Amino acid sequence: MTQPISRFPVPPRDGLPDDLRERFDAVEERSGFLPNVFAALSWRPAEAAAFFAMHDALMDKETAGLSKADRELIVVATSAANDCLYCVVAHGASARIRARDPHIADQVAVDWRKAPLDERMHAVLEVAVRLATDPAAVTAADLDRLRQHGLTEDDVWDVGAIVSFFALSNRLSHWAAIPPNAEFFLMGRVPRA
Amino acid sequence: MTQPISRFPVPPRDGLPDDLRERFDAVEERSGFLPNVFAALSWRPAEAAAFFAMHDALMDKETAGLSKADRELIVVATSAANDCLYCVVAHGASARIRARDPHIADQVAVDWRKAPLDERMHAVLEVAVRLATDPAAVTAADLDRLRQHGLTEDDVWDVGAIVSFFALSNRLSHWAAIPPNAEFFLMGRVPRA
Amino acid sequence: MTQPISRFPVPPRDGLPDDLRERFDAVEERSGFLPNVFAALSWRPAEAAAFFAMHDALMDKETAGLSKADRELIVVATSAANDCLYCVVAHGASARIRARDPHIADQVAVDWRKAPLDERMHAVLEVAVRLATDPAAVTAADLDRLRQHGLTEDDVWDVGAIVSFFALSNRLSHWAAIPPNAEFFLMGRVPRA
Amino acid sequence: MTQPISRFPVPPRDGLPDDLRERFDAVEERSGFLPNVFAALSWRPAEAAAFFAMHDALMDKETAGLSKADRELIVVATSAANDCLYCVVAHGASARIRARDPHIADQVAVDWRKAPLDERMHAVLEVAVRLATDPAAVTAADLDRLRQHGLTEDDVWDVGAIVSFFALSNRLSHWAAIPPNAEFFLMGRVPRA
Amino acid sequence: MTQPISRFPVPPRDGLPDDLRERFDAVEERSGFLPNVFAALSWRPAEAAAFFAMHDALMDKETAGLSKADRELIVVATSAANDCLYCVVAHGASARIRARDPHIADQVAVDWRKAPLDERMHAVLEVAVRLATDPAAVTAADLDRLRQHGLTEDDVWDVGAIVSFFALSNRLSHWAAIPPNAEFFLMGRVPRA
Amino acid sequence: MTQPISRFPVPPRDGLPDDLRERFDAVEERSGFLPNVFAALSWRPAEAAAFFAMHDALMDKETAGLSKADRELIVVATSAANDCLYCVVAHGASARIRARDPHIADQVAVDWRKAPLDERMHAVLEVAVRLATDPAAVTAADLDRLRQHGLTEDDVWDVGAIVSFFALSNRLSHWAAIPPNAEFFLMGRVPRA
Repeated sequence: MTQPISRFPVPPRDGLPDDLRERFDAVEERSGFLPNVFAALSWRPAEAAAFFAMHDALMDKETAGLSKADRELIVVATSAANDCLYCVVAHGASARIRARDPHIADQVAVDWRKAPLDERMHAVLEVAVRLATDPAAVTAADLDRLRQHGLTEDDVWDVGAIVSFFALSNRLSHWAAIPPNAEFFLMGRVPRA
Repeated sequence: MTQPISRFPVPPRDGLPDDLRERFDAVEERSGFLPNVFAALSWRPAEAAAFFAMHDALMDKETAGLSKADRELIVVATSAANDCLYCVVAHGASARIRARDPHIADQVAVDWRKAPLDERMHAVLEVAVRLATDPAAVTAADLDRLRQHGLTEDDVWDVGAIVSFFALSNRLSHWAAIPPNAEFFLMGRVPRA
Repeated sequence: MTQPISRFPVPPRDGLPDDLRERFDAVEERSGFLPNVFAALSWRPAEAAAFFAMHDALMDKETAGLSKADRELIVVATSAANDCLYCVVAHGASARIRARDPHIADQVAVDWRKAPLDERMHAVLEVAVRLATDPAAVTAADLDRLRQHGLTEDDVWDVGAIVSFFALSNRLSHWAAIPPNAEFFLMGRVPRA
Repeated sequence: MTQPISRFPVPPRDGLPDDLRERFDAVEERSGFLPNVFAALSWRPAEAAAFFAMHDALMDKETAGLSKADRELIVVATSAANDCLYCVVAHGASARIRARDPHIADQVAVDWRKAPLDERMHAVLEVAVRLATDPAAVTAADLDRLRQHGLTEDDVWDVGAIVSFFALSNRLSHWAAIPPNAEFFLMGRVPRA
Repeated sequence: MTQPISRFPVPPRDGLPDDLRERFDAVEERSGFLPNVFAALSWRPAEAAAFFAMHDALMDKETAGLSKADRELIVVATSAANDCLYCVVAHGASARIRARDPHIADQVAVDWRKAPLDERMHAVLEVAVRLATDPAAVTAADLDRLRQHGLTEDDVWDVGAIVSFFALSNRLSHWAAIPPNAEFFLMGRVPRA
Repeated sequence: MTQPISRFPVPPRDGLPDDLRERFDAVEERSGFLPNVFAALSWRPAEAAAFFAMHDALMDKETAGLSKADRELIVVATSAANDCLYCVVAHGASARIRARDPHIADQVAVDWRKAPLDERMHAVLEVAVRLATDPAAVTAADLDRLRQHGLTEDDVWDVGAIVSFFALSNRLSHWAAIPPNAEFFLMGRVPRA
């Protein structure tokens, strides 16, 4: 069955404000398709602009303590805890590509505790899932443990900010019932010839 | 005991980018003080700009189906479900002022189900708290119930987007351990002379 | 909206047994108003007498290991865990007055883990909330930890007995839907001239 | 292994205040043994007196809408939800005797939903367990449903008050680790010759 | 009230395949009655055969690290966590008989944490209940702790396999609403003359 | 990283009893590889034989009310609720193949409530997940609802028995930490040429 992109109106692309339309065109050109979350948010241009600005500030970033792949896995683990299909599938695709590992997204989504990751990432995912599901239970000691694994102050902030941003994103996706684009399901699973 | 504004660095105001500094000055002039969340976010100007843009798009808005007071009460109810002191106290203050009711914020924070609100707002808060705490359990029927209470498509989106935005805000506040400013605790509780 | 004092009958004061009426008169004279829980319980004089006797045995008591303010904060933390508006607001007022701190009740009610209290009180509130919400998980080691913080056998008993008594009180308040008196909301928030 | 009666001091019977000692003697004469909860509470005579007064006001009572057996089954169901061995075993014994049914206490303790009881008692136990485990979720409609099953205002209050009283009793028993007397385990299980 | 043996058809014994009928006859001769789970499963002979084969492989076994009584107590603790009356009552009977202790089954069913067992069995029951209720939370360290208490590799496997088998058995009993036979309730409670 | 097949010993194939070894050879020939659960169970031949017998009795079956694809989706939904990677990945593969749908397994694993399935399957998955996660909450009315969607008595039993069997299987997989074979991840995702 084909599922609609959103429970709310999706305006035609050419009616969007110029900056948003140009952004969407650029994403579509790069990816080959426009991820549904862009289309679903586009009826609210101010929110969409803020949403993508915050996303990029947190996710388009590679540091010694927290690689792009690590950031995607934080999204996968916490979005799975929130049962968010869009984010698990779309960011699972990014995680597979960034980590060059066809299995890691499924492993982290279903059971991050047994996923074949190093101790640093186990510590990151443990506190990330805690912040996602029981935020008041996060303590100063939890943040210290991340610093002991070599994360800088910026990295530690990013862990919390990524979890927080996807707490928003997961809920908007549930609220509007945004399905993942079909393309995401297979990305990063098949070795390139 | 005095508590720090954040677990992360808080830069001096005059080192901020111009647009952010001007925004902070304006808020401070209007309110008489700068809410701690501004100071705590200011070491990340891009995230701060996006955060406040999204906040204002959702909260500085009055519609027939969802008043400013109603929006603040959604924040209070869901932030209480997330045990977020900053948001309960700061938005509790706004809720008291917007609703011109010195008790409503405490009533909604502790036990929204018995709060003296109309059926529309009970329906709004029920689904808002569900989206905050168990997002996958929200169904299309939940959104329909809001429409039956007179909310427009825009209002229904706003309910979900406000809950989602404060899912982010609550978690950032927990992560950085941002305390509410002392001024918020009493605002709207004492009748003006 | 005005809310009734109880879902059950509230008899006129002058029909009460003498000892109960005298007690109520004394409380009203001291406080300036009669807390609603007195009126709500008065249709059951035997239960009311037992209720207030147990309350006073546990709460009108100041020891080196557990002050009156500490006792009120145990009530606030566990009543918040039970979403009991009456107890959070009425005992929040007492906590503010006893602790001479206008913020501590809100801090403890919403997020006791980050409240600016000493290690002893953090240990007390941790086990108090555990007993309130998951009583079988309390172990002998939990009680030992309180002793290590200087609580006597009597103090340790009191922690458990206060939590237990308000497990009763919170549930009766929910069952009868007893609202806090308007006076409680502001008590202890405004510095006396 | 023999388990102590309490984690707290248990004073010798002849050092108790006269009224308490007489009460204990009478109970022991009637039952053939002194239930451990009496001994465990006796180091706090004021609390003990209030405790037993409230207990008797709620439990020594037979009405058309709520028999003594029904009251004991409320205790069994909610004490099982709180994992309280003392109350499940001691009040399970009373329930078997009052209901003249050797199986009903185990059936209600482990799975009240499938216990062979009438619709009225299923409604009573459903709301009783809700009040015990998630008190804010109890609504006015829950109380109305009990009225529709023929419970009077007094009976409805009693349901809530019994649950509330045993919320206290279960937690005290956990806190002091009071074991049930050996006698209770078999009472009401074997048909009298 | 008499309760049916199952929500599904129960075929007459003499219509069963020979091997199943012989097995049932043997059990009935040994126990004096046919446990209801046999009758309830008999309409599905292949599943019944596999069910009893797996049961016996795990339960009819006595090792230095895990006696028959220990195995029955694992069943009692985890079946109680799953609110399964059939298994709590039937295996509670076996546990009383195997352990020659008339109280241990009730103690473990209601509050295994305070049950008078040695440290080894406390460690076993803690991880058993975790596997029953939150299986992803079991870690390699949990299994190591059992080895440190002297369990062999075979014993450790058996702990997990018994919990797993009764996760199945508890759910089938709920699904078919299988009541325990009346005989089980009293078995092992009364000292033999 | 390569993960071992089990936390417990895995015997060489040629040391297995004949019937088990022949079964394994047949599975390997049909699938092209031996699923790890076979190898992990093989050190316990009696349990393994019973396990596969029960599996096949429930899963190798196609009825008008419950197709093979439907049965696999029950496994996927409940195994995801139990965070069992092995079962989600292995039976997700079967579900994709049986349903000839490359997306359905991920949709059901992450958020079965929004999966594009008919009302019958939504009813099946709702009660299946309830039996998996809160078995005492399943009522006779839940089974009736399945009958109203056209399931026969045999189909209704199968729903419960499949959930029950995988409650066992999920826990054994967690206990032994059995990883899915690499082959399963991609099966049924790529259209055959």
